[in-house]
Amino acid sequence: MEHPKLEKVLAGITPADADAIHRATERQGQLTKPPGSLGRLESLSVQLAGIFGTERPSPKGKTVIVAAGDHGVVAQGITGYPQEVTAQMVLNFLGGGAAVSVMARKADVELVIVDAGVASDLPDHPALKVVGAGKGTADISVGPAMTREQAELCVNAGIGFALDAAEVGSDIIGTGDMGIGNTTTSSAIVAVLTERSPLETTGRGTGRNAKEMEHKTEVVEHALMVNQPNRSDGLDVLSKVGGFEIGVLAGVILGGAYAKRVVVVDGFISGAAALIAGSLCPHVYDYVIASHRSAEKGHKLALAHMKLKPVLDLGMRLGEGTGGVLAMGIVEAAATCLSDMATFAEAGVSDREPEGAESEGVVEGAR
Amino acid sequence: MEHPKLEKVLAGITPADADAIHRATERQGQLTKPPGSLGRLESLSVQLAGIFGTERPSPKGKTVIVAAGDHGVVAQGITGYPQEVTAQMVLNFLGGGAAVSVMARKADVELVIVDAGVASDLPDHPALKVVGAGKGTADISVGPAMTREQAELCVNAGIGFALDAAEVGSDIIGTGDMGIGNTTTSSAIVAVLTERSPLETTGRGTGRNAKEMEHKTEVVEHALMVNQPNRSDGLDVLSKVGGFEIGVLAGVILGGAYAKRVVVVDGFISGAAALIAGSLCPHVYDYVIASHRSAEKGHKLALAHMKLKPVLDLGMRLGEGTGGVLAMGIVEAAATCLSDMATFAEAGVSDREPEGAESEGVVEGAR
Repeated sequence: MEHPKLEKVLAGITPADADAIHRATERQGQLTKPPGSLGRLESLSVQLAGIFGTERPSPKGKTVIVAAGDHGVVAQGITGYPQEVTAQMVLNFLGGGAAVSVMARKADVELVIVDAGVASDLPDHPALKVVGAGKGTADISVGPAMTREQAELCVNAGIGFALDAAEVGSDIIGTGDMGIGNTTTSSAIVAVLTERSPLETTGRGTGRNAKEMEHKTEVVEHALMVNQPNRSDGLDVLSKVGGFEIGVLAGVILGGAYAKRVVVVDGFISGAAALIAGSLCPHVYDYVIASHRSAEKGHKLALAHMKLKPVLDLGMRLGEGTGGVLAMGIVEAAATCLSDMATFAEAGVSDREPEGAESEGVVEGAR
Repeated sequence: MEHPKLEKVLAGITPADADAIHRATERQGQLTKPPGSLGRLESLSVQLAGIFGTERPSPKGKTVIVAAGDHGVVAQGITGYPQEVTAQMVLNFLGGGAAVSVMARKADVELVIVDAGVASDLPDHPALKVVGAGKGTADISVGPAMTREQAELCVNAGIGFALDAAEVGSDIIGTGDMGIGNTTTSSAIVAVLTERSPLETTGRGTGRNAKEMEHKTEVVEHALMVNQPNRSDGLDVLSKVGGFEIGVLAGVILGGAYAKRVVVVDGFISGAAALIAGSLCPHVYDYVIASHRSAEKGHKLALAHMKLKPVLDLGMRLGEGTGGVLAMGIVEAAATCLSDMATFAEAGVSDREPEGAESEGVVEGAR
């Protein structure tokens, strides 16, 4: 199926529906509960109304797109696992044994597994989507990770996966990642796009001690110095210090927003992809829900920069889309409360007298 | 069906299975993910192993027991809604229009609706369980809420509801409440059992301003002065400053632990019930998961006293079991990760070399 490409997608992403947001906020006040008592579920529900253009959103179908890619920067010894693990984990996803596999099965979430650019050979598999951007990126501490053409190829592929998912009936689209070394490249992306130092954005990843982390931080600093990514150009940042799977996920986020679906973004690596997507088109954030706060240190800064408030905070730092799968249940609960609860009038429940000055309303912003 | 009564239940609640906890902790270290990277899901999964006595727990069936009761203390004007709302909301539960109704439907959770002691007349309904402890409690600011016999009746009824749920196949049992005025009685219970002042345990409830909250705090202080509840006797606390639905929920928690099921406790009112259950038998906490941190102020103190860490923190303060329904999805995800993920050996994924001194393991305690 022919999908629109990046330029058309960027031009086609519109802000959420302000009228629907207004109607949803009104409706929240009529439902049989004290105003504000559903907390974050209320603000989530209002966001969903804006995305789906109705005060009674009823999102159906859940897909998580898990993109895998390898990173040349592993040559610098910044990770605890051998590079082969990326391909081995892709096989584990396909075999149904990974964390995201079992969680998705339990929660009725479709998984789409993508080889964005894994270094090791992978066998053909009917369920594996192949982008084929390369056999892993180049080492960002020496030069750019990829060419601009490779970056565009990945983003366009991601757009296509999101639009495919939307077409087959998924209203809730999640992002997931796998890639040995990708906390290092994500730390570089987050440093550039949030204008923070690598010391602030670089966390432990799968590393085990302070010495490994210090080395990793130096590698990120070096990558930024060598590449001088242009923070006003998301594709430049992606191509210089990013990764193939991060490009695919940035595309998934853009494609989801273009298709007016809710995009549930996983943790740190997906957060780096969301920063790139948002730098290309700030309206995407209307469609994005941050599923959880990763234990990975730079994630907090990335979320703050995007003004996204994570739904969950469970000390997770696995990636794969695991946080996204968990948060989808909360998103569905938010939607059903707004859409399916009885109003005071419908249920014959007495509302209290309004009290002008101190009336509450939805406790949080629309996001 | 004849169920064991309180005394037998208290004697029959045993600690969680330490061997299964040990085996589950070992298994967590072999699963295809960096150790600790599933954060809270790992500690939850280990707790589930201890409850169900297996390192591969697979809990099936979810029930939330929603108990409703009225509170004589509403005579003191401590709430924003008329007392009739309790009965009206029971009808809303039965009609499927309340928040917990729509969320439970979406998440495949059974609801059991209990009239623990509602003041207004309720029609017979095939799905409504009637405890009939009274037409609302007496005003705790004047004297005891109920007799000790009424308290025991409620707790025994709750035990029965939990054992019924377990018998028909629910491995995950949640608590929920409805009762105009019950944040006031819960504040009193929490103050007594955590040894804190009413000023610290009394929150806004459905109240709207600082003046209402000040009055409410004074009412709680007065109730404790008048009744002098004995903090070493949970039934005394329940009967003097509690409520019928709180007694039922304390029974549900005890019954769930006795039946070796996981008990997912909702917010502030359920937390007060858990404090009573725990004061009668501290082993119950092995079986309890705190679903969320309520926005209601005293809840934090109650959780800290019970050494329970809430799974969710979504600014909710509705009750009804809504937090419990949400957390059940996380509980199921934790179980399926431990039970169904592939190990490194099974999936042919390379593990990293162990590094003695800095090895991680499960990041949190078993609860």
